[in-house]
Amino acid sequence: MNGAETLVHTLADSGIEICFGNPGTSEMHFVAALDREPRMRGVLCLFEAVAAGAADGYARMAGKPAATLLHLGPGFANAISFLHNARKAGQGIVNIVGDHATSHSQYAQAPLTSDIMAICGSVSDWLHQSRTPAGVAADGARAVQAARRGGIATLVLPADCAWEAADAPAPPLPAVPPGVVVPDTIDKIAVALRSGKRTLLLLRGRCLERTGMEAAGRIAAATGARIAHDYFTPRITRGAGLPDIERIPYFSEQIALCLAGLEQIVLVGAPPLVTFFAYPDKPSWVTPKGCELMTLATPEEDAIAALTVLADALGAKAPGNIVQLVRPDVPANGSLTSDAMGAIIARFMPEDAIWSDDSLTAGPGLQKYLVHAPRHDAIFLTGGAIGDAKPMAMGAALACPDRKVIAVSGDGAAMYSLPALWSMAREKLDVVTIICANRSYNILNIELGRVGAINPGPKTLAMLDLHNPVLDFVKMAQSMGVEASRAETTEQFAAQFADAMARKGPRLIEAVLNV
Amino acid sequence: MNGAETLVHTLADSGIEICFGNPGTSEMHFVAALDREPRMRGVLCLFEAVAAGAADGYARMAGKPAATLLHLGPGFANAISFLHNARKAGQGIVNIVGDHATSHSQYAQAPLTSDIMAICGSVSDWLHQSRTPAGVAADGARAVQAARRGGIATLVLPADCAWEAADAPAPPLPAVPPGVVVPDTIDKIAVALRSGKRTLLLLRGRCLERTGMEAAGRIAAATGARIAHDYFTPRITRGAGLPDIERIPYFSEQIALCLAGLEQIVLVGAPPLVTFFAYPDKPSWVTPKGCELMTLATPEEDAIAALTVLADALGAKAPGNIVQLVRPDVPANGSLTSDAMGAIIARFMPEDAIWSDDSLTAGPGLQKYLVHAPRHDAIFLTGGAIGDAKPMAMGAALACPDRKVIAVSGDGAAMYSLPALWSMAREKLDVVTIICANRSYNILNIELGRVGAINPGPKTLAMLDLHNPVLDFVKMAQSMGVEASRAETTEQFAAQFADAMARKGPRLIEAVLNV
Repeated sequence: MNGAETLVHTLADSGIEICFGNPGTSEMHFVAALDREPRMRGVLCLFEAVAAGAADGYARMAGKPAATLLHLGPGFANAISFLHNARKAGQGIVNIVGDHATSHSQYAQAPLTSDIMAICGSVSDWLHQSRTPAGVAADGARAVQAARRGGIATLVLPADCAWEAADAPAPPLPAVPPGVVVPDTIDKIAVALRSGKRTLLLLRGRCLERTGMEAAGRIAAATGARIAHDYFTPRITRGAGLPDIERIPYFSEQIALCLAGLEQIVLVGAPPLVTFFAYPDKPSWVTPKGCELMTLATPEEDAIAALTVLADALGAKAPGNIVQLVRPDVPANGSLTSDAMGAIIARFMPEDAIWSDDSLTAGPGLQKYLVHAPRHDAIFLTGGAIGDAKPMAMGAALACPDRKVIAVSGDGAAMYSLPALWSMAREKLDVVTIICANRSYNILNIELGRVGAINPGPKTLAMLDLHNPVLDFVKMAQSMGVEASRAETTEQFAAQFADAMARKGPRLIEAVLNV
Repeated sequence: MNGAETLVHTLADSGIEICFGNPGTSEMHFVAALDREPRMRGVLCLFEAVAAGAADGYARMAGKPAATLLHLGPGFANAISFLHNARKAGQGIVNIVGDHATSHSQYAQAPLTSDIMAICGSVSDWLHQSRTPAGVAADGARAVQAARRGGIATLVLPADCAWEAADAPAPPLPAVPPGVVVPDTIDKIAVALRSGKRTLLLLRGRCLERTGMEAAGRIAAATGARIAHDYFTPRITRGAGLPDIERIPYFSEQIALCLAGLEQIVLVGAPPLVTFFAYPDKPSWVTPKGCELMTLATPEEDAIAALTVLADALGAKAPGNIVQLVRPDVPANGSLTSDAMGAIIARFMPEDAIWSDDSLTAGPGLQKYLVHAPRHDAIFLTGGAIGDAKPMAMGAALACPDRKVIAVSGDGAAMYSLPALWSMAREKLDVVTIICANRSYNILNIELGRVGAINPGPKTLAMLDLHNPVLDFVKMAQSMGVEASRAETTEQFAAQFADAMARKGPRLIEAVLNV
């Protein structure tokens, strides 16, 4: 058994079931070892960012890490932006990065020699370079342990450590459980909630799935507190049958309105709110003056248990304010807006769908109806590196093969991860990708004014414009084996989306927005 | 004048004429400042790697740096792999990386907050974060100076330093000239060349353009020394009318044959040769035992001057072994091979074309005829991060608008930089992209055996295969506004390529290789 084989078996023993790979020469032994491990699926990605985004989406829906297989420093570099998103989402990933053989790394003139530890270290929570084939398996077990804590764990694997003889797989290491919130904290928050002050519970992390949501809903019903989640939250289970929950808006003025008058914000696995960007003469810190911040659970603590104990302590019974299913009518045939798209999607989407979303300007319109749609999980762009809706949808579909996945992306964002479409076709994933084609970096048209860059000239406007030439996402998808169509009216979009919901398999709809 | 305006004017004053940008909110003031600087062209790229590759290709052909405009840590991260290639090529680039306003960076929970200095530092030779709007202009002048020395220069520009008031542009800083080779060194090499020992001159850098090539050719003619360049050399001017020069092969066994019997290797701006990867039981260091290595010029020294003085010292007259033009016949109609493609390209390509090449397995076949083609510049994949042929071609076409540019890419490689096609269409660049579609990571099929990963099973082979589904590069190109066609026979390829040479503007040919 060589080092690569001990590693692959160790990863599988540790519960890793899938590897999103974009291998090169230095990873050939790892790839060959996959053939000897039936518990691990290999999914070929034609670009490393796709592998990273897919691993993120997989982790969000499977609740456990996937592996990626990347090719030296430059291969890892191509994954950084979506690893950054995963890190902001608190999703663990095990990156296996092939490296030159230990004897070869001394040659700076070899084309692929780079400062691999600096590149990998720039986004990793856990980083290690194997030095001997005998040590590789235990290194792998430690990487999985780090990833299970929600970290980006990166193991740099020199080619000779992969190809030389090693002993045996290493035993899995125990998962580190989340911290337990102490009763004192819960008591204090209970007192605060009973005070009658205007209070918001801000939730983030696994507590936004059903159990935590229901506990939060009970607390809201018993105390009158509002419950909310941040705009770019990693995952939320929402829709009909679940407690209603607010989404904190994107822009600072809207956030200020949303939070105005609050006297207390209770953080549940969430950090305090700040704006996405800073703007001249606008505050980044948006907690209202005089509003007290208190923490029920840090991101490292078991927020679900804390919410449940808190709800019991408050004598809270059933959650109130349960979302009722609304299946909107298809809007009258006309030009397509994000509002109209949202209504149509909410009309036709099945229960238990997964909504993967990196849209920006189309987002608010879409969400308006979706919050009353059948119960679904929504996963959002957490780190601002746009384009991950498609790869995350890939990973989600592999984690949940029986659920319909809907990926929603802006046209600008979609260009960052095009090869994801090929992997969707290859793996026959049940993903419907919707491209919101406004044919511009529309968010920047808005931001240009907000940051005070006044009187934009023709060069400026050209830098935000995607009209020249128009991107044809139908041909793009077809070029990678994905069935595709274009919708320019509400009627067309409704027909195409309903059809996509009624069938399985990869599909793309280019929705030409009238903005 | 705000900080961004002082920066843009300083860059222009320092000779930067083009900025390849993929901006976001934090770069809006820089974008707006472009409108007030007619000397700087802004080229929108829909993915940061395209911007980096274009800046690399521009530098190789213009002989001076371009700027890129990137969006915070994740935006820079997407550029790293092609910045790595540029760095290996010794090409300077000025990266302007927008960052959060200085007051905002303290918020780790802001989605785009990252360890931006670690990300940027992992591939930069010069790195600085502006701290005040007043300092931005001088920071920019220093960045250009660093890039003119062939370095990756990265200036992190906080949004408030861009939007707040500043004074005036900063004066350009003097370029640091290359080191001068001392007469002693030249005398020693002259003695060595007169010794009658079997000698190879290994050239790299600007000395592979006409002046250096002719000096090297004179030395070869006078002394019998061989002249060669490394396989993935940044740029070479070659073809009819120039001295013949050998290309060191890719695989170690071939290199060993090529270097066998040499007693001396003279390094001219080149490091000693090593293999691309290490392989079990094969050496990485390929200089033959007993062969003396000597240095005429380091990469930091003026190799062209040194070669010229050396040629004069040797009394060398005209270069011998001048390449004669060979315009091959179009091979009989049949299935397409890289050899046949090479013959057809050499038949039809015009003089002074630019050949941008990231092909791997198709490379040797293509080169066979190209070395006898009309004089052209070839730029190659220097850092092993595949996919840069298209973006480099973009940059080359912008540097040399009157020259035909031919980009040659493998199908696997092409997937790393697809949005380059859109920018070619938008800028109406005279670039013909040829996709060598063997429908696999063919290099890995070869490498799998070479690294000793024997008996590959179905999972392994699937990880190297691009058949399922077949990529349709014709539709792909059309989706981004580039005219495209598919060639499956020599006759089809000849007709399409001849037509592409006869017209101007972006064009793609998918050459389906019979491998």
